[in-house]
Amino acid sequence: MNRTLFGALAALSLITPVFAQEEPQGAPSPGEIVAEAAAGDWVPIPSENVLVMTLAPDVDGAARQVVIQLMPPPFSQGWVENIRTFARAGWYDNISVNRVQDNYVVQWGDPNYDNPEAKGKPKPLPQGLKVMTEECFAVSQVPTQCNPSRFDPMEGLSAVAEDLDDDVANGRDPYAVWTFHWSGWQLAMSQRSNDREWEAWPTHCYGMVGVGRNYSPDTGSGAELYTVIGHAPRHLDRNIALVGRVIEGMEHFSSLPRGKGELGFYAADEIDKRTPILSVRVATDLPAAQQPGFEYLSTESETFAEYADARANRRDPFFIVPAGGADICNIPVPVRRAAAD
Amino acid sequence: MNRTLFGALAALSLITPVFAQEEPQGAPSPGEIVAEAAAGDWVPIPSENVLVMTLAPDVDGAARQVVIQLMPPPFSQGWVENIRTFARAGWYDNISVNRVQDNYVVQWGDPNYDNPEAKGKPKPLPQGLKVMTEECFAVSQVPTQCNPSRFDPMEGLSAVAEDLDDDVANGRDPYAVWTFHWSGWQLAMSQRSNDREWEAWPTHCYGMVGVGRNYSPDTGSGAELYTVIGHAPRHLDRNIALVGRVIEGMEHFSSLPRGKGELGFYAADEIDKRTPILSVRVATDLPAAQQPGFEYLSTESETFAEYADARANRRDPFFIVPAGGADICNIPVPVRRAAAD
Repeated sequence: MNRTLFGALAALSLITPVFAQEEPQGAPSPGEIVAEAAAGDWVPIPSENVLVMTLAPDVDGAARQVVIQLMPPPFSQGWVENIRTFARAGWYDNISVNRVQDNYVVQWGDPNYDNPEAKGKPKPLPQGLKVMTEECFAVSQVPTQCNPSRFDPMEGLSAVAEDLDDDVANGRDPYAVWTFHWSGWQLAMSQRSNDREWEAWPTHCYGMVGVGRNYSPDTGSGAELYTVIGHAPRHLDRNIALVGRVIEGMEHFSSLPRGKGELGFYAADEIDKRTPILSVRVATDLPAAQQPGFEYLSTESETFAEYADARANRRDPFFIVPAGGADICNIPVPVRRAAAD
Repeated sequence: MNRTLFGALAALSLITPVFAQEEPQGAPSPGEIVAEAAAGDWVPIPSENVLVMTLAPDVDGAARQVVIQLMPPPFSQGWVENIRTFARAGWYDNISVNRVQDNYVVQWGDPNYDNPEAKGKPKPLPQGLKVMTEECFAVSQVPTQCNPSRFDPMEGLSAVAEDLDDDVANGRDPYAVWTFHWSGWQLAMSQRSNDREWEAWPTHCYGMVGVGRNYSPDTGSGAELYTVIGHAPRHLDRNIALVGRVIEGMEHFSSLPRGKGELGFYAADEIDKRTPILSVRVATDLPAAQQPGFEYLSTESETFAEYADARANRRDPFFIVPAGGADICNIPVPVRRAAAD
């Protein structure tokens, strides 16, 4: 790149600088810290936990794929297993995006299911679906029907990670006593009122995927799923099952036209705006050549600790006042495609 | 609506219920509380603080308008005045959206300004622009060059509002000692380190509009503006000027295709994706028939206190576990079009 171009770019009125070379001296940005991580700091994501969703091509004919990472035990496993059941039965084939509500969610499922605008019959549900109770929305310190093993988030956390979250979160979250990173996920934890037991749950950060349900005691099966496309609606935590997150292709959801109907559902005169979902496959079921490999930055690594501290205290050149803390959703866990073997 | 349809809709696997009539009994939702507010709880937004942006029509030929409310004194007034200067000089005519970065911002300005892809010369800036210093990013308790009057957020806050924010915020925010609603805006406040003085600043919630800048000591003029389209990037608070928020038409920004270039800028081979902004007008300068009237729910009203409490403690029928608190960006201030006279 020639000098003239470089100078012009450096002067761009950006809200974050583009090129590091022309930057004043300063601390590395969170992105720079992650880019420098050792290969061993990255943890492979098992293909059994990866869903590959193929949407209809866009208006220019370009392919659109959304990849979702499902949560590991002990979180939401009944719904996670149902989702694999739905995917393996081909039940998600030819469903659609039916709802896009600004600063809230994109929701998808069978457009013929309980839908007055339905053109066809709803699909029969596959065999073998589990039914979960509301206590499965969180994981308790004591064993429950959902989680027969006692869950201790401290097991497996490195000392670095433990200190990190104390510093970073500052113990200041309006929704929980404590927020923390665990095995590559953003969790929250509190004591149940009047109980001694603690419970932990996933947080509704941007890109998290949850299970649509009807009124209590319904907890949803996995037929209707949604992802967060705006400011984290943390008030939904513990009220609905979170099963994973979008790790690639989020823009194919977040840039969809918003529905003009109630709650962002596509109204009767705009049914054509529903984006078709052609298929959803568990990655292990794809031909080897089509199986994507992904990895996340270990939340127990020193690199992650530095990254999270940098998210909470921006000292890279653009910034003037480091915040001194960050909310859990403002410290996303880096995920990337694994290098090809 | 006939009973069959009604029953079908009630059974929809929604993540929030559509129709209240079939709901189990429960407390009102935040939206229901706002809908019941008395006319006197709404505060008109002065037309001098309203910007009407006309974007190019969408692919279907439908008109697209985005409306922005500018902040009142004492916040960011130098930039707010510059924005009116830019608008009144017609400087914003025929600029474009140049950057859309997922879970971050939409940014717009002169596509020929410091842009290696420029097809033409940058527009000369209008006369009369003010230059602000970094201390103007926040408002101090002591007078400064930006804000010659002493700012006391407690003045004008009703006792209801004071108690509200103590309860709702629980004093738990990672970015500030205190967050609160003031005159219809979401603010944060802390003591400067080692000083006795407190300072307050606007928060980077979804839809807030800020002023693009280069490296310090540049603070931006208002030529480049952006809005938040994802999880609130609160680490930008106090580092950049916030001047207002989108109050209508946000979907025209948030649903734009994401740029494939660095930081979400549209790359060289997708320049055609830049959405043209045809004009930006201060509402008072429009013909009377085209002037929109907007109002916001007074943050000093009992209704607002009930609404905010409901945001922090969802007891409406869909919910099972009230959160017990909410972050400041999860309690947006309701804004609506005023009834026609």
